[in-house]
Amino acid sequence: MKQEIAFIQRADLKVKPDTASLGFGKYFSDYMFVMDYHTDIGWNDPRIIPYAPLTLDPASMVFHYGQAIFEGLKAYKTADGTIQLFRPEKNMKRLNESCDRLCIPLIDEDFLLHAIKQLIVTEKDWIPDGEGTSLYIRPFIFSTEPYLGVRASKQYQLLVILSPVGAYYGNQLSPVRINVEEHYVRAVIGGVGHVKTAGNYAASLKAQEKAEANGFAQILWLDAKENKYVEEVGSMNIFFKINGEVITPRLNGSILPGVTRDSVIELLKYWNIPVREVKISIEEVFAAYERGELEEAFGSGTAAVISPVGELNWNDQTITINDQNIGQLSQRLYNEMTGIQLGKKEDPFNWTVKVAQV
Amino acid sequence: MKQEIAFIQRADLKVKPDTASLGFGKYFSDYMFVMDYHTDIGWNDPRIIPYAPLTLDPASMVFHYGQAIFEGLKAYKTADGTIQLFRPEKNMKRLNESCDRLCIPLIDEDFLLHAIKQLIVTEKDWIPDGEGTSLYIRPFIFSTEPYLGVRASKQYQLLVILSPVGAYYGNQLSPVRINVEEHYVRAVIGGVGHVKTAGNYAASLKAQEKAEANGFAQILWLDAKENKYVEEVGSMNIFFKINGEVITPRLNGSILPGVTRDSVIELLKYWNIPVREVKISIEEVFAAYERGELEEAFGSGTAAVISPVGELNWNDQTITINDQNIGQLSQRLYNEMTGIQLGKKEDPFNWTVKVAQV
Repeated sequence: MKQEIAFIQRADLKVKPDTASLGFGKYFSDYMFVMDYHTDIGWNDPRIIPYAPLTLDPASMVFHYGQAIFEGLKAYKTADGTIQLFRPEKNMKRLNESCDRLCIPLIDEDFLLHAIKQLIVTEKDWIPDGEGTSLYIRPFIFSTEPYLGVRASKQYQLLVILSPVGAYYGNQLSPVRINVEEHYVRAVIGGVGHVKTAGNYAASLKAQEKAEANGFAQILWLDAKENKYVEEVGSMNIFFKINGEVITPRLNGSILPGVTRDSVIELLKYWNIPVREVKISIEEVFAAYERGELEEAFGSGTAAVISPVGELNWNDQTITINDQNIGQLSQRLYNEMTGIQLGKKEDPFNWTVKVAQV
Repeated sequence: MKQEIAFIQRADLKVKPDTASLGFGKYFSDYMFVMDYHTDIGWNDPRIIPYAPLTLDPASMVFHYGQAIFEGLKAYKTADGTIQLFRPEKNMKRLNESCDRLCIPLIDEDFLLHAIKQLIVTEKDWIPDGEGTSLYIRPFIFSTEPYLGVRASKQYQLLVILSPVGAYYGNQLSPVRINVEEHYVRAVIGGVGHVKTAGNYAASLKAQEKAEANGFAQILWLDAKENKYVEEVGSMNIFFKINGEVITPRLNGSILPGVTRDSVIELLKYWNIPVREVKISIEEVFAAYERGELEEAFGSGTAAVISPVGELNWNDQTITINDQNIGQLSQRLYNEMTGIQLGKKEDPFNWTVKVAQV
């Protein structure tokens, strides 16, 4: 796709929020990237335009049959003024995997990454530079054809919006209480759990609300077939450190292949810390605790980076991990990952992609 | 909810489509019903306004986390000019079940039905009166809060749009070829398959496209845990007539409780035809065929009413049902159901609800 990206300037820029009040996904920048799709002409009309409401027919298929997928990545500003991304090509690739599963036409990954870079350069003043802050990038695609028959839409819209964000869970890593969900499930093999489609998140809310009502911060999801094997934690991947070895559920078709998950695995290998992707039951996790071998547990994701687990509740049994303190490895991974992202640490994997210098 | 429904008149009415070209879900009437929700004030501002595009923030949660549910029912015009609905209270009830599962605030069922009736009276000229035609009613709710954190939205919009429709599969019942899907699954127990949420339909498209590419009209879904038990056909419930008895999969938490499904069961009981809701494997269906006992198979749903199955393909084995002809019972059920809906047949169950006389 060799199209020019059109640009429409806005008259007035928004007032930017205070860094301290950013939170996550509350504020949006001045511009957005938009591209349309129609079966007759393919993806077309790429443009950077003022962030503004969309105009959609009430019969647009997204409201009825839910063809909607997304990605999440971040732009960082380093101390020397470099704007950089973290492994964005992985997000582009996964976006297309989501497209494929949801019968949405594939996008040109290189072109979209190019468009995202252009949008970020346009919005460079929106990248916050406080501790733990970044510019969250949300590419998403949804069906727009006004039609109520059940089939794939013939029209779509792709957008990229930007949101300056603080650290997802505040400014310090803080171990959270997690409930192992036994009734509701997130995904099943043969379904759509391995891709980032909107419906997965809607389906997860009920269990999350139940957990919160019982004083837990998140859910640990088990597999849908046997309600036995560990899958994910909230909307993150999960890791356990057991007797010196790090374990994470093997990608099985219902677990999301997280970019942070992959990066954690790579870092551990680089550090010569044993790491394995396995099928692990919740029973084994609790047994490791009983043996005194469960040293750490943490979630990994783009929003939170690393999120330590302080407590696990399953079957009316509660176990406390590492005395509810941040594990040494969790902290090291968090420091290393954010260090690389912010250009404070060496990047031996060439994970960061420079966008511009300001 | 005792609120007045506001009305905004449009300047010009649309030109109505020819009855012959209606199809399904392609045309929409002049007005729509809209109502908003905000956690601070609940459902508010019910109004009947000109059918027009919606204006939505790109960060509206529906595009990202998919809280979207819907219903489908029809309004019929009888020979004597009565406008009537078919068991609409069941749709209102199921809408709330969908709300509950998707963490969407419940609606006042009586008020929504009242609003739908008022909309239909406003749009009475849109009810077509050709054979097999009706006015399809699509209530739907989706999240609108502009926020990217994963949690239930604090804002929603409920709409009801109307579409004049022809018979879903054309003017005559015609048995279709069905592929038994073995790789992809529609839903799993603990998930959201038992409610009408947008994501279920998005997740089903890939298997549907695969089936069509192989010359099949629809998919027969098996359960996700064992890939063994029959669940649904396409977006309909499924029935088998085996050795004089009618069998349909028991509602198990991953099957949609169809209004037409329930009506078929009630009618069969009324006719003293044996009917059972059971857990039935695809193996048993094929075994019944081998014994020469598989007499009929058909899907049931609001859009198509009754849809006969002419052929089932599973594991490279293909069986032909009733010589690819419409079964006697399928035809009888179709006639009776549409007869009641159109006021041509007695309604011993008081299923129809009169809306107005024109």
